[in-house]
Amino acid sequence: MKLARCSYFESGVFWAVVDVQQDMVTPIAGEFSTWAPKVAQGAGISALRFSGPPLALSQVTLLPPIEPVNRVVVAGANYAKHLVEFGLSAPSQPVAFLKAYGALIGAHDPIRFPPLTTELDHEVELVAVIGSDDVDLDDPLACVLGYTVGNDVSARDLQRSGPKGIGMDLFAAKSQDKTTGLGPWVVTKDELPEGSPKLRLTLKVNGQMRQDGNTADMTWDVGELIAFVQQRSSFACGDVLFTGSPAGVGMGTGIFLDPGDVVEASIEGIGTLRNVVGEKTPVKSKVSA
Amino acid sequence: MKLARCSYFESGVFWAVVDVQQDMVTPIAGEFSTWAPKVAQGAGISALRFSGPPLALSQVTLLPPIEPVNRVVVAGANYAKHLVEFGLSAPSQPVAFLKAYGALIGAHDPIRFPPLTTELDHEVELVAVIGSDDVDLDDPLACVLGYTVGNDVSARDLQRSGPKGIGMDLFAAKSQDKTTGLGPWVVTKDELPEGSPKLRLTLKVNGQMRQDGNTADMTWDVGELIAFVQQRSSFACGDVLFTGSPAGVGMGTGIFLDPGDVVEASIEGIGTLRNVVGEKTPVKSKVSA
Repeated sequence: MKLARCSYFESGVFWAVVDVQQDMVTPIAGEFSTWAPKVAQGAGISALRFSGPPLALSQVTLLPPIEPVNRVVVAGANYAKHLVEFGLSAPSQPVAFLKAYGALIGAHDPIRFPPLTTELDHEVELVAVIGSDDVDLDDPLACVLGYTVGNDVSARDLQRSGPKGIGMDLFAAKSQDKTTGLGPWVVTKDELPEGSPKLRLTLKVNGQMRQDGNTADMTWDVGELIAFVQQRSSFACGDVLFTGSPAGVGMGTGIFLDPGDVVEASIEGIGTLRNVVGEKTPVKSKVSA
Repeated sequence: MKLARCSYFESGVFWAVVDVQQDMVTPIAGEFSTWAPKVAQGAGISALRFSGPPLALSQVTLLPPIEPVNRVVVAGANYAKHLVEFGLSAPSQPVAFLKAYGALIGAHDPIRFPPLTTELDHEVELVAVIGSDDVDLDDPLACVLGYTVGNDVSARDLQRSGPKGIGMDLFAAKSQDKTTGLGPWVVTKDELPEGSPKLRLTLKVNGQMRQDGNTADMTWDVGELIAFVQQRSSFACGDVLFTGSPAGVGMGTGIFLDPGDVVEASIEGIGTLRNVVGEKTPVKSKVSA
C-alpha cells in the first residue's frame, strides 16, 4: 500500500491511499497517529476509513509524508564508499542528527538554492517512517510503517564551516529551508521482503547517473539505526529516519548542483523524487554572520 | 509580563499570564501563533483575551514554554571561558544545532538520568523565544517575544562519542529524553532594557554555586545569534533559541551530576528552574549499539 500526504487546491492537507495505475488517491479519515500504528502492525487497508471520494493523483500536490509535529532524524556515515568521498575512515558507530522540518519539500517541488552556499550537493537515501510510539529495541523493525525516498541536499561549504574541535556544521549544511526532497509516498513494509530493505537506489542529474547503490550495502541496517537513535532520543509515531547515502555525491567528484538541474532520486519498489534546482536565492541583508 | 505554558489536572494544556505575587495564572484564549506576534510587537496585555478565571500558580504544572510543533535551536560556543573547559580556542563563528522537543522538561520536573551516560552535566543558558514568522536580519531582536531559562543538560561522554572527522555527537549528548529544563515562564522583552539582555545567570547544585556568569559576556549577542541561525534555517513563531552557557560546567571540573542532586538554574529578572536528578534509567535491552 502507498500512503501519501497531499493537498488539493483549498481543501487542506490530507493523507491518502495512492493507486498509481488508476491515477487515484483516496483520502483517509482520522489522525495519522490513530491509524498508522495499526497499519505498522500489519492490519493493512482494513485499518483505514476513508473520508471522501477518490481524486486524481495527477491533480494533487504531493507533500513530504510527515506531520509538522514530527522529527526528521538523519543517520549518516552508513555507506563505506561514501565516507571515502569525505576522506573519512570507517567509523565505529553511526552519527545521528536532526534536520529542520522546514528543510523538507515534496516530490515535485523546486529545490531552493540557499544564498550562503556555492557547493549544493545531493544524497539519495532510503527513509524509514516510524509508525509507533513504542520502539522495541529487540525488534526495532516492528515499529516501521514503511519506507520512502529522501534527497538529503547538503551545502558542503557550510558543512565544513563548523568551529574547529566541534566538527561538521550539519545544521547549516542540511537544514536549509526547502532543500530536502521527501516522498513521493510511503510504501508500507508488507510490500517488501521481511528485514532491512535491500533495494537499488539511484540519483540522476539531468538524466546522468551520479549515485547508484544498494541499501544492502549499509554498514548498519535499518533496525540497527533505529535502535541506535532510540537509545539517544526516543522516536514518536510519524518521525522519519534518513539512513545514509551511497557514493557518488558531488563532494567526491567536485561536480555540484546548478540552478536548473533536474534531480531524480529513485528507490526501486518505492518511487522517484523529481526536483528542479531553483535560482540562487539572493542574500536578504548586509548581515553575513 | 510573564507567560507560562501550563497544565491543570485534566483540563489540558494552556498558556497563561502569571502573577507571582498573587500566586495566580490567568488562562489565555486562542492560539499562541495568533497572540504571540502582537505581544512581540509591543501590544502588551491588550493583545490577549482570557478564557477563564485565574487559577493558583502553585496548583498548575509549569510545562516547557514551547508548542510541540516548534523547534529547539541551540547556539553554542558563545562564552569564551566555557570553551576553555573543552580545550577549544575562540571560534570564528557560533555553532547551531537542533535539540529534540522530547528532551525538554518543565521548571520543576525531574531530570531523567539516561542509561548510556556516566557524565551528565549542566549548562544554564538564556533562551530567546521567537514571536514572529518573519525575522528581520537588520533588526533581529524585533522578532523576540521574550526570554526564559534553559538548562541544556548534556551527556559529555556521548558528546565525545561521535565518529572521527565528523565531530561532537551533539544529538546523543543533548537530545536525551526529558533532560533539558526550560521555563519557568517567558518574560516579555518589554520588562528588560532594550538590546541584547545583560543579566546574571547562575547554576547551583545542592545549593553550591557551579556557574556564575553574565549574558553580557556572550561572544555573539542574541541578535547576532538569531541572524546567524535565520540564514541557515528560518525561525517560526514559537521556536526557542538557547544562547550558550558560561564557564563552570562539570566538563571543566570533573564533577558531574548524580542521582538526587538538586539543580537550580536562575537568570535575574526571569526566574529559576529547580530540577532534581532522577535515578539512573536502566538499559532496556541487550542492544548496545
